Amino acid sequence: MSAPGTTDIPQDPGQEVLVPADGLTDLLRQMLVKKGMFAAEAKVGAQRMVEADLRGIHSHGSRAIARYLADIDHGGIDPRATILTEVDTPAIAVLNGGGGLGHVAATRGMQLAIRKAKDVGTGTVAVRHSQHFGAAGVYAMLAAEAGMISFCTTSTGPATVAAFGSTAPATANNAQAWGVPSRQGPPFVLDMACAEVAWGRIDSLKLYGGQMPAGWALDAEGQPTTDPHAAKTLLPAAGARGYGLAFLSSVLAGPLVGQRMPLHKTWSIAKDGSEHFFYCINPALFGDADQFFAELDSTSAAIRELPPATGTDRVKLPGELEYERAARWRESGIPIHRDHAAKLAELAEEMQLTVPWDSPA
Amino acid sequence: MSAPGTTDIPQDPGQEVLVPADGLTDLLRQMLVKKGMFAAEAKVGAQRMVEADLRGIHSHGSRAIARYLADIDHGGIDPRATILTEVDTPAIAVLNGGGGLGHVAATRGMQLAIRKAKDVGTGTVAVRHSQHFGAAGVYAMLAAEAGMISFCTTSTGPATVAAFGSTAPATANNAQAWGVPSRQGPPFVLDMACAEVAWGRIDSLKLYGGQMPAGWALDAEGQPTTDPHAAKTLLPAAGARGYGLAFLSSVLAGPLVGQRMPLHKTWSIAKDGSEHFFYCINPALFGDADQFFAELDSTSAAIRELPPATGTDRVKLPGELEYERAARWRESGIPIHRDHAAKLAELAEEMQLTVPWDSPA
Repeated sequence: MSAPGTTDIPQDPGQEVLVPADGLTDLLRQMLVKKGMFAAEAKVGAQRMVEADLRGIHSHGSRAIARYLADIDHGGIDPRATILTEVDTPAIAVLNGGGGLGHVAATRGMQLAIRKAKDVGTGTVAVRHSQHFGAAGVYAMLAAEAGMISFCTTSTGPATVAAFGSTAPATANNAQAWGVPSRQGPPFVLDMACAEVAWGRIDSLKLYGGQMPAGWALDAEGQPTTDPHAAKTLLPAAGARGYGLAFLSSVLAGPLVGQRMPLHKTWSIAKDGSEHFFYCINPALFGDADQFFAELDSTSAAIRELPPATGTDRVKLPGELEYERAARWRESGIPIHRDHAAKLAELAEEMQLTVPWDSPA
Repeated sequence: MSAPGTTDIPQDPGQEVLVPADGLTDLLRQMLVKKGMFAAEAKVGAQRMVEADLRGIHSHGSRAIARYLADIDHGGIDPRATILTEVDTPAIAVLNGGGGLGHVAATRGMQLAIRKAKDVGTGTVAVRHSQHFGAAGVYAMLAAEAGMISFCTTSTGPATVAAFGSTAPATANNAQAWGVPSRQGPPFVLDMACAEVAWGRIDSLKLYGGQMPAGWALDAEGQPTTDPHAAKTLLPAAGARGYGLAFLSSVLAGPLVGQRMPLHKTWSIAKDGSEHFFYCINPALFGDADQFFAELDSTSAAIRELPPATGTDRVKLPGELEYERAARWRESGIPIHRDHAAKLAELAEEMQLTVPWDSPA
């Protein structure tokens, strides 16, 4: 999770290039099309990736495209996957993602959960045989834009988070997001890892240089470390709670749809695949929607007026900072690390595409 | 949440009385009947309270009976409440608890969620106009015994947990529980508060005497305190995450069914009432149940064999320690504080009932 006030990148203008959001979306779409994806599905994937970038979660956004393209080349992602419906009731569905780009199956899954919630009050869609879907928060945003409360989670591979009370990994650092819609102001989006930190933020520290705070990770010997390069096992957030939530996510995005728990997965997401779980709740079928939004909006406004603690300029709701950042970066361009920009430019050149920014001097 | 290895009571045999679980259940049932409840509903309430005691959560078990009885006397709880169904679709229901004992409406809510999940794969039941339901974990146990994955949460009154980035309370310390069934060994039950600690544990420290660790609470001036008597505002667990989860719970057990957010509630749960939210997921409709349980059970067994960290004798799953404790205390009797026992004996005497234990010397 990005705690309020942070992105997963350290942010250092001296190391960054500003990239236009629309141009970047189009570049990613073209790359995926060059690899054989249908234009409409490539666009969905590109949109989800740039939405992650805009929220400040570069590790789950365009920085991951190189891996996806390589996975297509090596057969880990099928660019022409067909998404099949394996179970369908008024309340639930199980989709088979066909091993395609996770963002496409995940978007389909959340959209189907939204449709079911419109009909019967809730919709639950589990997706198996899919691939990495990027940032959980962007799916919570899709639901919020449709007026739905939502929960989503995904599997992220083998066990890398210690059990509470152990030095050994027991669960994966599965992402979870909850979203609540609003009529006034940004929707509530809680996008969190179950460990103290997401692996993506550790990767960002490797990219920018820097040490981890104590309490994030253990090294290969199970000893505490602050060196991002030595981090081998993450520590669960809030002890037993983060451990429990990570285990729970692994069950929903795993055995629930016939797949494995993190302890039984390998290090390769391309080989293991990924599972997703989406749950939508339609406030309009539980009660009076106007009353629901009025109560929420007046509470959110009151919370924003609370006295800030030392070191905080203004009290925010979860997801508010990311929402404001996205609006700002949509105008100004998205700051990405020069190595990240150079990698995109290199891929673009290989694929005879043009990047929508000037190369840094 | 009770972290593994702890109960919400400090446990000091010199200050405790051993009370038989069945006898205690029967005593609580008779007390509720004396106050006008139907025997069958009184029994449900008494069972849920003693189940909380057995898991070590006395604050949400029989220690709360005096408050419930007083609330019946003062009109805050209606002993002859009728539970009405206000919304009903294949996937969801909204129940009106009629201002009765929360445990009864909550049990009905979870049972209805289980039934819907048997039919369509999931069931979601929200309950409004109810009262305090005790410990969230006991409802997750009901679902686990029925073979269901479950989530439940409840509102617990006005705002007492600081917003992340503020010294002022913004949300209530709502309880949340997730449960996952098992075929071998105890089910997974994660029963957690969203603040660093539950108010009940602070009450237990007041009862037994003792200081709080740093980081649990702020005093009336918004300053950190370790004195349980000075605690006024709790700090959220894992910062923005606990704050976000508490906010989310307040939405599900509040505005979703037309009720208020914690910032708009008073200090009196008898006046404000309580709302509950139950969600059940039926693994048998998402895929192959045998495969689901085999994967879970083999993973749980492997986690129990992981190397324990210093100070831990054996790695456990969330809820395992409470499950083992319940089995042990069902045999040995439940240790409760002598003041708690004396209060029960005093109530029993007023109501011309006999307590099923010897008074301490």
